[in-house]
Amino acid sequence: MVRVAIIGQGYVASIFAVGLERIKAGELGYYGVPLANELPIKVEDIQIVVSYDVDKTKIGLPLSEIVQRYWKGNVPESLQEIYVRKGVHLRSLRNLPIEATGLEDEMTLKEAVDHLVEEWKKYKVEVFLNVPTTEAFVPFGKLDELEKAIKENNKDRLTATQVYAYAAAQYAKEVGGAAFVNAIPTLIANDPAFVELAKENNLVIFGDDGATGATPLTADILGHLAQRNRHVLDIAQFNIGGNTDFLALTDKERNKSKEYTKSSVVEDILGYDAPHFIKPTGYLEPLGDKKFIAMHIEYISFNGAHDELIITGRINDSPALAGLLVDLARLGKMAVERKAFGTVYEVNAFYMKNPGPREAKNIPRIIAYEKLRQWAGLPPRYL
Amino acid sequence: MVRVAIIGQGYVASIFAVGLERIKAGELGYYGVPLANELPIKVEDIQIVVSYDVDKTKIGLPLSEIVQRYWKGNVPESLQEIYVRKGVHLRSLRNLPIEATGLEDEMTLKEAVDHLVEEWKKYKVEVFLNVPTTEAFVPFGKLDELEKAIKENNKDRLTATQVYAYAAAQYAKEVGGAAFVNAIPTLIANDPAFVELAKENNLVIFGDDGATGATPLTADILGHLAQRNRHVLDIAQFNIGGNTDFLALTDKERNKSKEYTKSSVVEDILGYDAPHFIKPTGYLEPLGDKKFIAMHIEYISFNGAHDELIITGRINDSPALAGLLVDLARLGKMAVERKAFGTVYEVNAFYMKNPGPREAKNIPRIIAYEKLRQWAGLPPRYL
Amino acid sequence: MVRVAIIGQGYVASIFAVGLERIKAGELGYYGVPLANELPIKVEDIQIVVSYDVDKTKIGLPLSEIVQRYWKGNVPESLQEIYVRKGVHLRSLRNLPIEATGLEDEMTLKEAVDHLVEEWKKYKVEVFLNVPTTEAFVPFGKLDELEKAIKENNKDRLTATQVYAYAAAQYAKEVGGAAFVNAIPTLIANDPAFVELAKENNLVIFGDDGATGATPLTADILGHLAQRNRHVLDIAQFNIGGNTDFLALTDKERNKSKEYTKSSVVEDILGYDAPHFIKPTGYLEPLGDKKFIAMHIEYISFNGAHDELIITGRINDSPALAGLLVDLARLGKMAVERKAFGTVYEVNAFYMKNPGPREAKNIPRIIAYEKLRQWAGLPPRYL
Amino acid sequence: MVRVAIIGQGYVASIFAVGLERIKAGELGYYGVPLANELPIKVEDIQIVVSYDVDKTKIGLPLSEIVQRYWKGNVPESLQEIYVRKGVHLRSLRNLPIEATGLEDEMTLKEAVDHLVEEWKKYKVEVFLNVPTTEAFVPFGKLDELEKAIKENNKDRLTATQVYAYAAAQYAKEVGGAAFVNAIPTLIANDPAFVELAKENNLVIFGDDGATGATPLTADILGHLAQRNRHVLDIAQFNIGGNTDFLALTDKERNKSKEYTKSSVVEDILGYDAPHFIKPTGYLEPLGDKKFIAMHIEYISFNGAHDELIITGRINDSPALAGLLVDLARLGKMAVERKAFGTVYEVNAFYMKNPGPREAKNIPRIIAYEKLRQWAGLPPRYL
Ligand SMILES: NC(=O)c1ccc[n+]([C@@H]2O[C@H](COP(=O)([O-])OP(=O)(O)OC[C@H]3O[C@@H](n4cnc5c(N)ncnc54)[C@H](O)[C@@H]3O)[C@@H](O)[C@H]2O)c1
Ligand SMILES: NC(=O)c1ccc[n+]([C@@H]2O[C@H](COP(=O)([O-])OP(=O)(O)OC[C@H]3O[C@@H](n4cnc5c(N)ncnc54)[C@H](O)[C@@H]3O)[C@@H](O)[C@H]2O)c1
Ligand SMILES: NC(=O)c1ccc[n+]([C@@H]2O[C@H](COP(=O)([O-])OP(=O)(O)OC[C@H]3O[C@@H](n4cnc5c(N)ncnc54)[C@H](O)[C@@H]3O)[C@@H](O)[C@H]2O)c1
Ligand SMILES: NC(=O)c1ccc[n+]([C@@H]2O[C@H](COP(=O)([O-])OP(=O)(O)OC[C@H]3O[C@@H](n4cnc5c(N)ncnc54)[C@H](O)[C@@H]3O)[C@@H](O)[C@H]2O)c1
Ligand SMILES: [Mg+2]
Ligand SMILES: [Mg+2]
Ligand SMILES: [Mg+2]
Ligand SMILES: [Mg+2]
Repeated sequence: MVRVAIIGQGYVASIFAVGLERIKAGELGYYGVPLANELPIKVEDIQIVVSYDVDKTKIGLPLSEIVQRYWKGNVPESLQEIYVRKGVHLRSLRNLPIEATGLEDEMTLKEAVDHLVEEWKKYKVEVFLNVPTTEAFVPFGKLDELEKAIKENNKDRLTATQVYAYAAAQYAKEVGGAAFVNAIPTLIANDPAFVELAKENNLVIFGDDGATGATPLTADILGHLAQRNRHVLDIAQFNIGGNTDFLALTDKERNKSKEYTKSSVVEDILGYDAPHFIKPTGYLEPLGDKKFIAMHIEYISFNGAHDELIITGRINDSPALAGLLVDLARLGKMAVERKAFGTVYEVNAFYMKNPGPREAKNIPRIIAYEKLRQWAGLPPRYL
Repeated sequence: MVRVAIIGQGYVASIFAVGLERIKAGELGYYGVPLANELPIKVEDIQIVVSYDVDKTKIGLPLSEIVQRYWKGNVPESLQEIYVRKGVHLRSLRNLPIEATGLEDEMTLKEAVDHLVEEWKKYKVEVFLNVPTTEAFVPFGKLDELEKAIKENNKDRLTATQVYAYAAAQYAKEVGGAAFVNAIPTLIANDPAFVELAKENNLVIFGDDGATGATPLTADILGHLAQRNRHVLDIAQFNIGGNTDFLALTDKERNKSKEYTKSSVVEDILGYDAPHFIKPTGYLEPLGDKKFIAMHIEYISFNGAHDELIITGRINDSPALAGLLVDLARLGKMAVERKAFGTVYEVNAFYMKNPGPREAKNIPRIIAYEKLRQWAGLPPRYL
Repeated sequence: MVRVAIIGQGYVASIFAVGLERIKAGELGYYGVPLANELPIKVEDIQIVVSYDVDKTKIGLPLSEIVQRYWKGNVPESLQEIYVRKGVHLRSLRNLPIEATGLEDEMTLKEAVDHLVEEWKKYKVEVFLNVPTTEAFVPFGKLDELEKAIKENNKDRLTATQVYAYAAAQYAKEVGGAAFVNAIPTLIANDPAFVELAKENNLVIFGDDGATGATPLTADILGHLAQRNRHVLDIAQFNIGGNTDFLALTDKERNKSKEYTKSSVVEDILGYDAPHFIKPTGYLEPLGDKKFIAMHIEYISFNGAHDELIITGRINDSPALAGLLVDLARLGKMAVERKAFGTVYEVNAFYMKNPGPREAKNIPRIIAYEKLRQWAGLPPRYL
Repeated sequence: MVRVAIIGQGYVASIFAVGLERIKAGELGYYGVPLANELPIKVEDIQIVVSYDVDKTKIGLPLSEIVQRYWKGNVPESLQEIYVRKGVHLRSLRNLPIEATGLEDEMTLKEAVDHLVEEWKKYKVEVFLNVPTTEAFVPFGKLDELEKAIKENNKDRLTATQVYAYAAAQYAKEVGGAAFVNAIPTLIANDPAFVELAKENNLVIFGDDGATGATPLTADILGHLAQRNRHVLDIAQFNIGGNTDFLALTDKERNKSKEYTKSSVVEDILGYDAPHFIKPTGYLEPLGDKKFIAMHIEYISFNGAHDELIITGRINDSPALAGLLVDLARLGKMAVERKAFGTVYEVNAFYMKNPGPREAKNIPRIIAYEKLRQWAGLPPRYL
């Protein structure tokens, strides 16, 4: 059994909840779940116990009602028993057409942290899946600065994810262990402050920013070119989508966060910083969750030959991350059992756009996958 | 030093010759050569000593003249001293607008084999790079059938590549070791008859069919999808090109050879035989050596979501293989030094579309690359 | 009212029937019908009265049952009253995994023609929509040769479409007028024998080969380039699909018919025969009716600049033609009313890949559309 | 003879100059010049007499030196005699890494206008080709407001193009006629103030924003879909390029101008405002003048079928516009001769992204081309 708390009951979390329950009900196979049912902990062992949000129209409702905004098929009955509770917002929904409310409207951040810890004890949470709206943030670097911001109730300095991760550490200390999966761009596994905090408090952190869609594909294609010693001249890549997350990214500050994590892949894999334009570019509402991706790569091959590759695609955004979460919830529990507190590169390298810790590098996902299997105690697949 | 004999002085071999000499002259870096200059044997150590062809307009000429048909830049002077000699043809140029002549017009195949062995002794050949026109062929399977065909001068049963490989084995036996790199689809490393022959005669075989262009890219993209447990619904892939090799493939029999090697990749990597249409489709003369490739892949992601990827590209065909040959020549010599007679999967898995031996499977190239480095005694790159 | 007989109750005809009835039922707008409801004859006036096929599993069944093979939604009730009757086959289903039976198995072709004419009188057919399987055919050129073939019961010389068109002419003569819409590649509107026959017998012919998918798009893109005087260097275009029509085209003879009509567009529009590879290439069953198209065009712009365009798409094959048939049925009746016997270039130029008569040329469809509107008595749209 | 003054001696103007002289020298055909040599005024009759710029490193130099920054081939000797003179800048190069100087640094705008008029009289200019850097601008609407801004030396209100167009009108009045071709997004032909000014002063205006690359292609593809009554669901289109013009567009204000003119095409042609994201997105220096374009269109076809088209391309940006200028220079002179003062829709509709006058609409270019030919007295091509 893995007892999971969701943070941010939006598109990704809703598809995660629906897909998980459909698998349990035997309606679906394990497609989109990288490790399928190979792990000692089974997909069917995952149980969502509670969810958090700050959208006024979601708080207090059961998941069965919320997922209908994102999923037109039959809603699994089991979702009627899981409720959305109030989290902290801290500008999370700024500039979005959504009315927000958060615990910090009624209490200090320190009190909110304590409040959350108490709730989590009641729900016996083992793993947190953090998928709220993309945030504009500033990393901390030093643990004492983070602690100071909490103590001083510094609402301008902290983002919701930073507060959740901090609270998760307090909780882990009290209950002896927990895992926090940060699937959004806010630096947590890449922020030494949080890694130190995690190590000291029996928290496992996975992060940052779930690797779905064009970025891990780029990683593998660049790996492919690098291995042939083809010299990449330039890379243009963009996404256009119509879900709320793309809408949120029209906000310049948030967009910057994404750009940061998406670009690190180029130099990490090629070994040089090929000129690139890699951005989640645009919002086009009718595309919905099925984004349009386009990528153009030019390179030099043997004897100076000039080649080019163009990749386009239509990719469902939320299922891609939701499928990874099915693994991450289980790997989170496994890491706690192994007492692998702090962050785990072997997991991050495959599942995350910006694998922590800070000094860690991106590698082709095809390689990362084998390292992951090894960490998870599974036999190699291709190696 | 690696003393190399070329078989088939066409586009690939000419770009190989020009690029190699330009590297030696300091005009070019190592782009397109996968292992660059990391191997103990240096790129600059490769020396082409002789070349074979059956095109009447090429036999007897120095490479410096021939490469001008394929390369418009300055021709390296060093190519003036390498000459093209007469090989065996055996229907190689059938249906092509080229007049052929071969040793078998004047002698039996057995005599031709002996004749070649004598020439090679004179040139002190260490590695053969086999890049003649794609052949229609039937593999042998059993070594005695191969030996019988040679003995009986069975010109209908044997292809030129089969005769060259047979001759290379005789030569290797006499001189104590040699390597035969089969970069074309004819099954050699995948034909147990030849692998047995090679083991018995101190021959190293690499093969079959150099992995360039869309096929290894497909391998890596399928690996990428498989690792996320995405279920591939269908794959359509085609190439259109304008070089003589594409012209040769308009011949149905030859085309079948290519199709065979290109398709094995799907089941090997996915673990199931996703429906696919993978063919070198068409000849369009003005495209020249820069082929157009297109690939369409549909797959199922988490919660039943339906995604699709489209990849198109313009890729210079011949430089892609020529760059691999720069490695293969050196690895061939290394394998001889290590007495790794027979065939070497670790090399084939990265460089070949249809890696021998027969029972061996395709794996993602990104993985194969690391195995190759290990075999070659190089430190891992991403692993 | 337009009373329509269908010939070939396959994918196209079934989507035509379903879509038409759904429009009548108010379930659908006029999307995909070029002239929407602008014509004096309304979409709702079209009535399918009978259908012909030679597939043993279809003959005798109501359309309501047959369309379920192609359409998963609700089946309009009105289709329960339309039945499939036996046609002539003449090798139409050769090499396909379908058992065929035809009138010619029981009588001579002349008798079959008379038999059909009698049936059609009973159904009071006004327009024939000819959409059977693509045929391998030889055009007649001279009317007396056609008449001779019928008289001599020459089953090897005639195709089913040629017999149907001949019968339609006999029928038109007797009833004073009818229209035959040939939406398949067999040359009818482009065969002077049939045009002469039509003129003499009060028959209107539209044809040949419905212009859907990549071909008319190519026409417009080439028109676009031609108008800027860009010099097209080469064109590669291919389709891969999974419906029975693509399966039929794996038969070499049939494929040739398609190629013929698809290629004429290049020289007609550019004014020179740019090198091209335009073929309905491959069959990949899981693609179903939604084909994958890819097109690559290179051209020279001002001051010798070298540009390229790549177009890919996923296009539902059958609805594209079915939507055109909704117009063609009505235009057919209008042409009969105007006594425009023979063939009508203004209609063909927009709707057909190979617009008859034989000497007529392809023009950009965007232009053809305005000519069509003019012929149909509609105000210009953009002109 | 047509005596041409260039305004903005950048990439477009330099390729125009080189290409024109190469045509005169017989080195090139008329590729990329829509009307080739069909007009009564011949390509060879065009003569560049003077050029204007505000880049300090260009003023005073002969074109032969400047074009070397953009063109690596042989420079036509004739360009040694054409010199670049100082224009007005008015923030034109704001935020760009170029040092600017303009007449307004030394005199009032009114004086600058008079100064230019005097120079133009000396050079006997007949047609102005306006191709300076894209401007951030506010249209005038009312002529008296424009005149007031000039009189009051209002440097914040006016852009350089507005001043040049104003000066051209003064000049035209004095010499009896001239043409001003506005190939940049600043509204001139679409600003009633300028159209009125032009009519009163014997000036012909063509504009606004040369239609090259993805926009006119979109127009034709949308026309193609509209004519089949396919219902467009959404359109995503973006360009990534590496020339100075793309760099200039990273400036938000300027980018807005482009967006404005590029988007009008959708509603004009479809008749409804399909959701779209059409933007010149990004700057990637290594792409140089050869931009990468990508377009994705989804639409509904018959019976509710859902289709999609993806178009990508590599297109040389500057030659595309330069080729149009070869026509526009000649058409400008023709319009003056015909006294077609004000603006000429028939010309604008084909050559301009935002064809003036203000109330005029975009139509498919394939149609516009035929209207243009008619206006120019040429026989129809496809009509
Ligand atoms: N493929 C992918 O979809 C993908 C990949 C990588 C990362 N991500 C990240 O996942 C996150 C979620 O994406 P989504 O598509 O589900 O977005 P979404 O907008 O549909 O859902 C976000 C949800 O979080 C809630 N929320 C916002 N602030 C909150 C807070 N402070 N506390 C609790 N809940 C809060 C919102 O109300 C909303 O319900 C985004 O940050 C995105 O960057 C997604
Ligand atoms: N990327 C690639 O180009 C690539 C990739 C994999 C495999 N290959 C294979 O490489 C081979 C060569 O390709 P290419 O583009 O250079 O073709 P090519 O047609 O330009 O050259 C082939 C040369 O071989 C010669 N030849 C033919 N039969 C011969 C014989 N029996 N003995 C000696 N010479 C003979 C021909 O005369 C010609 O000079 C082809 O078989 C092709 O399948 C190429
Ligand atoms: N976009 C398009 O789908 C498109 C475009 C242009 C032309 N066409 C043409 O339309 C035709 C039909 O396409 P489809 O996708 O419906 O194919 P299909 O295979 O689904 O249907 C053809 C039907 O015709 C029947 N048939 C075969 N021979 C016959 C005969 N002699 N008499 C009566 N019926 C006969 C078959 O049994 C089958 O039911 C093809 O010839 C194709 O070339 C299709
Ligand atoms: N396909 C195309 O390239 C295309 C299409 C449509 C419109 N345009 C427009 O054409 C213009 C020129 O494009 P380009 O690629 O040549 O750009 P560019 O940056 O290469 O050249 C612009 C030139 O104008 C000069 N300039 C700037 N302000 C000036 C002023 N006030 N007076 C005189 N000269 C001035 C600059 O110094 C530079 O030399 C741009 O406005 C662009 O929007 C280009
Ligand atoms: Mg990191
Ligand atoms: Mg094998
Ligand atoms: Mg014709
Ligand atoms: Mg306008």
